Amino acid sequence: MRVEYDRIKRHPERSRDDRADLNAVLDDGHHVGSLSTVVDGVPWVVPMLYARVGDRIMMHGSTGAGALRYVATGARAALCVTHVDAWIYAHSLFESSANYRSAVVHGTLNRIAGSEAAEALTAISDVIFPGRSSEVPAHTPKQLAATQALAMDITDGQWTVKIRNGPPSTPEEDDEVIPGLWAGTVPIRSSYGPPEPAAWLPPGVALSPSVERLYPNEHAG
Amino acid sequence: MRVEYDRIKRHPERSRDDRADLNAVLDDGHHVGSLSTVVDGVPWVVPMLYARVGDRIMMHGSTGAGALRYVATGARAALCVTHVDAWIYAHSLFESSANYRSAVVHGTLNRIAGSEAAEALTAISDVIFPGRSSEVPAHTPKQLAATQALAMDITDGQWTVKIRNGPPSTPEEDDEVIPGLWAGTVPIRSSYGPPEPAAWLPPGVALSPSVERLYPNEHAG
Repeated sequence: MRVEYDRIKRHPERSRDDRADLNAVLDDGHHVGSLSTVVDGVPWVVPMLYARVGDRIMMHGSTGAGALRYVATGARAALCVTHVDAWIYAHSLFESSANYRSAVVHGTLNRIAGSEAAEALTAISDVIFPGRSSEVPAHTPKQLAATQALAMDITDGQWTVKIRNGPPSTPEEDDEVIPGLWAGTVPIRSSYGPPEPAAWLPPGVALSPSVERLYPNEHAG
Repeated sequence: MRVEYDRIKRHPERSRDDRADLNAVLDDGHHVGSLSTVVDGVPWVVPMLYARVGDRIMMHGSTGAGALRYVATGARAALCVTHVDAWIYAHSLFESSANYRSAVVHGTLNRIAGSEAAEALTAISDVIFPGRSSEVPAHTPKQLAATQALAMDITDGQWTVKIRNGPPSTPEEDDEVIPGLWAGTVPIRSSYGPPEPAAWLPPGVALSPSVERLYPNEHAG
């Protein structure tokens, strides 16, 4: 199985140079990436919610605790985002694989504050909870003060995208083909389970439009 | 929204110290992590398939190409694994959140070879394609030679686990509650779409048992 690495002869290069491919990978999925940096010479990594806004990646966490205090303005960092789209069943474990889309963006972290931080928070909300920002009040000054926002610019030549998207490779001369053995693609899908209202919510409160739109098939009838 | 960082007062610590929690996070999901290391002082990260085998994490890629040549035996590394389980809709963007389980394991990378590499490949296959290793032939020497396997030991005190698992926080005195606005949990689920046979497969080949078991509900009737 090879998720990230191409065999030299068999697979055409999976790397993509088109900025549109980078945007498509960053803008899809759950918007959770792994943010890596170096602290005292040692690798450091943490999951982060993020949103791409043009040529910037916005991320945030609380100022109160933990990990973000290690991340200094000006630190070199790399954000890794991976979507696993399918499992590829071949006739050997070696040829078995995954369809995936991954992006790694290298850059420099910058802390942002004030109205820029508020915009970052809203941008992240808008990709994760589309429509929700118009259903709730604007950020309060207290909330903004408790939030640490980070930005990383997307720079030409400082990112990579790799995509595998296809069926099991057609067996070549020296590949084993086992009569009667299935081979193919098992797509992986993400969906939402039934929404669960908060226990503190009064009974009878209808789903918000921002939540309702997550279940487009529920209203076919 | 705070995926990784706890607010000091409101949330009890999300960190877990129990090794069983680490195992549960590593052993669940798609078995794709982000492997971080430091190359020439700069953070370097790449998605990796992995499997935990006891106190070791096994990873692999091809010897032929790319990224793995940067990863030296003895390099300090960190593997980050994140599962996003639900979106938490609160009455402010600030209180909105995610249910998640994340693990970061710090350690030292070791290249492994020979029978140990073969065992690593099979272990990774067995978590991603359960049952498949008994349906296909054993690795050939040629395949093993083309595979780079890596191992990282899990060491006490060198890993962290964070888990948020619950409904939206009950609003406190100074939190905004908006009459008539929904709040709650939207679970995120992963499932498999219909299997797609490879075009080169002769017609009429039945699904392998290892694939069929991915669709337990298809055979209820």
